Amino acid sequence: MTQAIPTSTSTSTAATFTALKCKECGAEYEPKAMHVCEFCFGPLEVTYDYSALARTVTRRSIEAGPKSIWRYRSFLPVASETPIDVGTGMTPLLKANRLARRLGLKQLFIKNDAVNMPTLSFKDRVVSVALTRARELGFTTVSCASTGNLANSTAAIAAHAGLDCCVFIPSDLEAGKILGTLIYGPTVMAVQGNYDQVNRLCSEVANTHGWGFVNINLRPYYSEGSKTLGYEVIEQLGWQLPDHIVAPLASGSLFTKIYKGFQEFTQVGLVEGKSVRFSGAQADGCSPIAQAFKEGRDFINPVKPSTIAKSIAIGNPADGVYAVDIARKTNGNIESVTDQEIIDGIKLLAETEGIFTETAGGTTIAVLKKLVEAGKIDPDETTVAYITGNGLKTQEAVQGYIGEPLTIEPKLDSFERALERSRTLDRLEWQQVLV
Amino acid sequence: MTQAIPTSTSTSTAATFTALKCKECGAEYEPKAMHVCEFCFGPLEVTYDYSALARTVTRRSIEAGPKSIWRYRSFLPVASETPIDVGTGMTPLLKANRLARRLGLKQLFIKNDAVNMPTLSFKDRVVSVALTRARELGFTTVSCASTGNLANSTAAIAAHAGLDCCVFIPSDLEAGKILGTLIYGPTVMAVQGNYDQVNRLCSEVANTHGWGFVNINLRPYYSEGSKTLGYEVIEQLGWQLPDHIVAPLASGSLFTKIYKGFQEFTQVGLVEGKSVRFSGAQADGCSPIAQAFKEGRDFINPVKPSTIAKSIAIGNPADGVYAVDIARKTNGNIESVTDQEIIDGIKLLAETEGIFTETAGGTTIAVLKKLVEAGKIDPDETTVAYITGNGLKTQEAVQGYIGEPLTIEPKLDSFERALERSRTLDRLEWQQVLV
Ligand SMILES: [Zn+2]
Ligand SMILES: [Zn+2]
Repeated sequence: MTQAIPTSTSTSTAATFTALKCKECGAEYEPKAMHVCEFCFGPLEVTYDYSALARTVTRRSIEAGPKSIWRYRSFLPVASETPIDVGTGMTPLLKANRLARRLGLKQLFIKNDAVNMPTLSFKDRVVSVALTRARELGFTTVSCASTGNLANSTAAIAAHAGLDCCVFIPSDLEAGKILGTLIYGPTVMAVQGNYDQVNRLCSEVANTHGWGFVNINLRPYYSEGSKTLGYEVIEQLGWQLPDHIVAPLASGSLFTKIYKGFQEFTQVGLVEGKSVRFSGAQADGCSPIAQAFKEGRDFINPVKPSTIAKSIAIGNPADGVYAVDIARKTNGNIESVTDQEIIDGIKLLAETEGIFTETAGGTTIAVLKKLVEAGKIDPDETTVAYITGNGLKTQEAVQGYIGEPLTIEPKLDSFERALERSRTLDRLEWQQVLV
Repeated sequence: MTQAIPTSTSTSTAATFTALKCKECGAEYEPKAMHVCEFCFGPLEVTYDYSALARTVTRRSIEAGPKSIWRYRSFLPVASETPIDVGTGMTPLLKANRLARRLGLKQLFIKNDAVNMPTLSFKDRVVSVALTRARELGFTTVSCASTGNLANSTAAIAAHAGLDCCVFIPSDLEAGKILGTLIYGPTVMAVQGNYDQVNRLCSEVANTHGWGFVNINLRPYYSEGSKTLGYEVIEQLGWQLPDHIVAPLASGSLFTKIYKGFQEFTQVGLVEGKSVRFSGAQADGCSPIAQAFKEGRDFINPVKPSTIAKSIAIGNPADGVYAVDIARKTNGNIESVTDQEIIDGIKLLAETEGIFTETAGGTTIAVLKKLVEAGKIDPDETTVAYITGNGLKTQEAVQGYIGEPLTIEPKLDSFERALERSRTLDRLEWQQVLV
């Protein structure tokens, strides 16, 4: 599991992180390019000197920082004082009054990473961190195993940073995600297999080629980027924690890192501590974490994915057990929904709030609705739903479910006839009529 | 040209604008829903009490505002203290070092509205302003004539605000722009004709239906939203003006409003005045403004558009003569480029800076390149290029020009063979090889 080249570690004084530590046995390592414990094969996580952070970081010092994830640089595992900053993060936390009313909630917020920069998904957060760290460690080629969004982000930010890039994707991805990667000029390997097969292949390549794989040998750094989705919600709620969050589950990493972000800001005194319920969303066609949660298991049975929610279709989720643990101990839930419910979720969010999300976001909204209907979210809870990607990348998913334009001639009477007809038919019907 | 209903004007004390004024004859009107002078048929523009603004607005008061266009609310024509804020604006001003080096410039910035919120184009700015004003004026149905981006934005923000919405588009628009409108649930009229025919039809509808057309009877308010693209650049450059800006030209409105934004901030003392050169970009297939500029005319000869840059394909541009005037008096230029140059411009920006823009942005980058090569931009000038929309909406334009992934089996030797072959062929060739 050791990396051939490069092995340099930065010693800049700007670093606030101290080591890599095994989540299972506690063994510590120098912060190099590695992700698995050499003793117990457990996952490694970055550790920080929280006493020092508590002394030096204040709400005001954060607020004076850049309008990006780098306002939280002290809590991220990079040593450089000039990280790769393409404006990632600080996406809107939108008060979703119309959706709240529709669902019967009182205080609902949408954290909208469908407009994250530069490639419109939360992956821009983790990639900004991973590529900054990759550069510090001396890598010149960066890579990833991706369900689509990660490939978009790695290719784009590598282009901006002038790093060589080779990405691996399942060959059956949505057209928008393939084109939205190729445009940046990387090498794209389309693997004839599912994400779990892509991931296994990449682990082999990481061991032989000396490349920086953002979600393999750089994973401990990469995954820390998701903590900013926790920090930003705290800051945007006026330095308060919400009562309940709902987020999609793919590998489970995002979920655990939002949790870690909340814990850290509480620990260093940036926010008053309170219990926050964590609920997770999966698609029925790939719900190994939801199944483990429902069956009370503390292990994951891998599944073979089959769902339109490709960006979260990970059949063997690396952090699944940690996600189950967090949902349980916070009194949250993990639920799954059908592909049709996912499409309805996409439409519901668009029609009530003007946010067009991809299938992962549709999954989150559908699960949110299901949990409210089952009485598992209290109407009085301040609830935050995390929308993690943009609908323009998965247009296939909704094509055929949103009607058609009314085609008219450029004449007033043609318009008037169309309008009259549209008013006598219900919306779904008339949008399919040709005038 | 008068509006049947509604006619109410707001009298909130939060308003800083005073009237509508004819750009040609100077006649003044109450700030209602109207856009053409009743005496001379000239366009109307919003006026403000700049002495009052100079006394009350400071850099600090702006910096303390929301992270959206509404930090500049005092310079926008709305009376409400709670405008429709979906996080629009404050998009990154990216220092484009790699693109600058490629072009031979020293200080190049990209103003990146490809990641504007919520619908990924600068139109979210003008629509946020127009719909806020529409609500103040009592409209319950909003509408627009659009080349695509405006329809996306009007439908999305109307959904968020709970306003009824009917949009008009040419029927041959890109699939992403049609789907990216339908998803929000508006009525979509696909007109069998070009944008100029759509626009004429909408003028007739505006006169008969009492709807708020953002770019017709609400145009004086709507167009003011583009000034924020000027304000933000000033603030993001550390309260300084750039030396040279390059922006796309469709109706010409964006161009004139960036100019107005620079003038206003100079006038009220928020920035030190200096001359800024204004250069405009069009596609060869629809370049009526560039033609007027080159031929030294002070009138526009309308053209019939034929270009892949559909979002800027306006053959009879309403503000064309004002754009020509600004380019001339600031010692700028207006240039046009071929469709192939537009595609190359999209790729160049993606490969050097990790920004995927639509055809309008490709036009801007291609014109930027052409002007540098012609010695019309000085390498020492601080230059800002305005990128106004996202490439995921015009995927058709680049499909076929960006290569294909390398398809491999999920096995190390299949990957190694593909990698070896990719390294022996040049990039464009090997991306089309199937392994
Ligand atoms: Zn261990
Ligand atoms: Zn007049």
